[in-house]
Amino acid sequence: MRVTEIFTRTSKTAPADEVAKNAQLLIRAGFVYKEMAGAYAYLPLGLRVLDNVKQIVREEMNSIRSNELIMTTLQRKDIWEKTTRWDDDVVDIWFKTKLKDDTEVGLGWSHEEPIVEMMKQFIHSYKDLPVSLYQFQTKMRNELRAKSGIMRGREFIMKDMYSFHATKEDLDAYYDETIEAYKRVYDRLGIGDDTYVTFASGGAFTKFSHEFQTICDAGEDVIYLHREKNIAINEEVIDDAVKELGVSRDELESVKTAEVGNIFNFGTQKTDEMDLYYVDENDQQQSLYIGSYGIGVTRVMGVIAEKMSDERGLVWPENVAPFRVYLVQIGEDPAVKTAAEELYGQLEAKGVDVLYDDRADARPGEKFADADLIGIPHRVVISPKTLAENKIEYKARISDQSTILTRDELFATLGTTA
Amino acid sequence: MRVTEIFTRTSKTAPADEVAKNAQLLIRAGFVYKEMAGAYAYLPLGLRVLDNVKQIVREEMNSIRSNELIMTTLQRKDIWEKTTRWDDDVVDIWFKTKLKDDTEVGLGWSHEEPIVEMMKQFIHSYKDLPVSLYQFQTKMRNELRAKSGIMRGREFIMKDMYSFHATKEDLDAYYDETIEAYKRVYDRLGIGDDTYVTFASGGAFTKFSHEFQTICDAGEDVIYLHREKNIAINEEVIDDAVKELGVSRDELESVKTAEVGNIFNFGTQKTDEMDLYYVDENDQQQSLYIGSYGIGVTRVMGVIAEKMSDERGLVWPENVAPFRVYLVQIGEDPAVKTAAEELYGQLEAKGVDVLYDDRADARPGEKFADADLIGIPHRVVISPKTLAENKIEYKARISDQSTILTRDELFATLGTTA
Repeated sequence: MRVTEIFTRTSKTAPADEVAKNAQLLIRAGFVYKEMAGAYAYLPLGLRVLDNVKQIVREEMNSIRSNELIMTTLQRKDIWEKTTRWDDDVVDIWFKTKLKDDTEVGLGWSHEEPIVEMMKQFIHSYKDLPVSLYQFQTKMRNELRAKSGIMRGREFIMKDMYSFHATKEDLDAYYDETIEAYKRVYDRLGIGDDTYVTFASGGAFTKFSHEFQTICDAGEDVIYLHREKNIAINEEVIDDAVKELGVSRDELESVKTAEVGNIFNFGTQKTDEMDLYYVDENDQQQSLYIGSYGIGVTRVMGVIAEKMSDERGLVWPENVAPFRVYLVQIGEDPAVKTAAEELYGQLEAKGVDVLYDDRADARPGEKFADADLIGIPHRVVISPKTLAENKIEYKARISDQSTILTRDELFATLGTTA
Repeated sequence: MRVTEIFTRTSKTAPADEVAKNAQLLIRAGFVYKEMAGAYAYLPLGLRVLDNVKQIVREEMNSIRSNELIMTTLQRKDIWEKTTRWDDDVVDIWFKTKLKDDTEVGLGWSHEEPIVEMMKQFIHSYKDLPVSLYQFQTKMRNELRAKSGIMRGREFIMKDMYSFHATKEDLDAYYDETIEAYKRVYDRLGIGDDTYVTFASGGAFTKFSHEFQTICDAGEDVIYLHREKNIAINEEVIDDAVKELGVSRDELESVKTAEVGNIFNFGTQKTDEMDLYYVDENDQQQSLYIGSYGIGVTRVMGVIAEKMSDERGLVWPENVAPFRVYLVQIGEDPAVKTAAEELYGQLEAKGVDVLYDDRADARPGEKFADADLIGIPHRVVISPKTLAENKIEYKARISDQSTILTRDELFATLGTTA
């Protein structure tokens, strides 16, 4: 894509009321637009990042045999009353509104209850199990404060997955399989090394649930970490967990983190409350086991923006970046223009996503500053000087050093062939 | 994908309260689930159709240089007050709710005002124009009644596009270009022949706007049609339009239709109301011209379901179908199983999306009935009998006649090479 084809532009400043670093950077670089506190629009660059994150999550959820679907934002009161969670004293983040006939409806902050209700239509027998399904849903949560940019919104995108099983053993096995899928997600997103499977509070059925916590100064959580043993414990269960895991509290380091995923074993509690059963091989009605698995898609994008940035701007990991290459044309020399157009065409033909800075009215310094602020992993410059040598100037976003490459060397650097 | 990998199943009946044919069929075939009147979840098959429709629309909007983004559902009162459209007496389909601090917010039923407001940040000079942007947004409309299935929902997906221009001429040219892009969309969706560019009521700036109306018995509109002259007029402007177009009312045939798209020239009215201006070459502040262009994505899916169906079920057009081939394995003969698995692998390797009915516990008649109800364009059967001849039984969904083909003939029929 050409810079002149995208309507957004970078800005030296962020809105005065925007205190979160992730949102400041994303607004300045033209990825998001703040509609109100906790509600952001995703502009073309931001939407590309979001789609990249979703596609990685989608592939990994598909790899563990989960089916994608999309539920509704509008929520029925009667369904949520079955588990007492319609009550604002039980769930204090509901947005509620009314149909014309005065029927109260809610806006989905979670979809556990409606998913369980729906599955009554599809699960009858042990032959229908196991089932796993997931969605990318815009969740609405009436947060009292929303000052963390896209890391905690009133309106945000979440991947929520639900699995249904005939036995505890089957749920446990799928739960473990999901942990591995989640690890692959965070690895592919470029934050795997800083993300820990963390013991957190469980529920009626299990002592612990598991969170995925990423080390992040802007995070709202604190975890206790044993890096060598790869043990991480959320503050809320520290006393129970150290006993259970046989570690001493002094061995643990306390670190600020952001929760980027969580998985939860409901046992049979929710299905019992909502009367979802199955019939086993002996025609006996049995309780169903459910697991629930979330990844905050927009939040993870915010965490990446927080962590992977420097004084010059964003530094997107390769798999998440809106484009892989930022191609800068210096000056309006027709030969330079031709060479830049040619390289743009070649890279696009190889399937490399290029953002081509073809602006005639921007100085080289502006183009370089934008390349850095937007945070594209690879910067490629064609100027009269490089063209004279039949070379290309290359700089990785994470490096301060540019190098002069031949075209073939550039293709090799980008992992593509001439 | 295998039938045994999808959690949905077909059903002989639809919910008793579901009166719309499109929703009855889509529910029975496992494409959608009714959460409440006017709000449907999209199950794996339905989501695939939706994604196909969106991708066609996306490609055509990109082809006219529009940028995709995604705005928010939550809407600020102050923005909508600028055009008086916050008022429930002016717009009677608002869903409204409140933040914790009692601030009223709305749920987006349209995004014209917030888009114009946002563009103040990105449009300053004539150099920033023209700009076009679009989104696939879940719109919320508090409809009094919602009895048309997915053809008119309280929660539905719309592609809405907005273009900004320095001059009337530039807007007019883009408006015409959009008409052509829309025609390509409906052609690719398989309803081009039955879809008419229709004169409808304009606004302060133009006598007429244009709707895209598809002939459909379940539609809520009536248009007057001159098939030979390719003239279509909405009932609401019939008197004005016949005069303008120089046709006589008796020449026109009245037809029931569903509106699948609409385009509207706002002139400078909305930008003037909202104080969005640009500075021209002579440093003079000027009014901006806007066009607004919608396609009801879920509605168009409903219209296709209504129109392209028969007594056996849905009949998806090729480009929209959730899968192109429904592969039926008859019996559990290991040789048949092997041959079916092999063909499944071959077709998938060629990029043909196959729904492989690998169920061991379903009779051939059930599989055939499901193939028809789900409406996949091409049905392929491997049975002990066809296998003995080293052949394949093929039937198009639109045909009653099956034929016996070699594998190469099948590939040719599917437009793929051996």
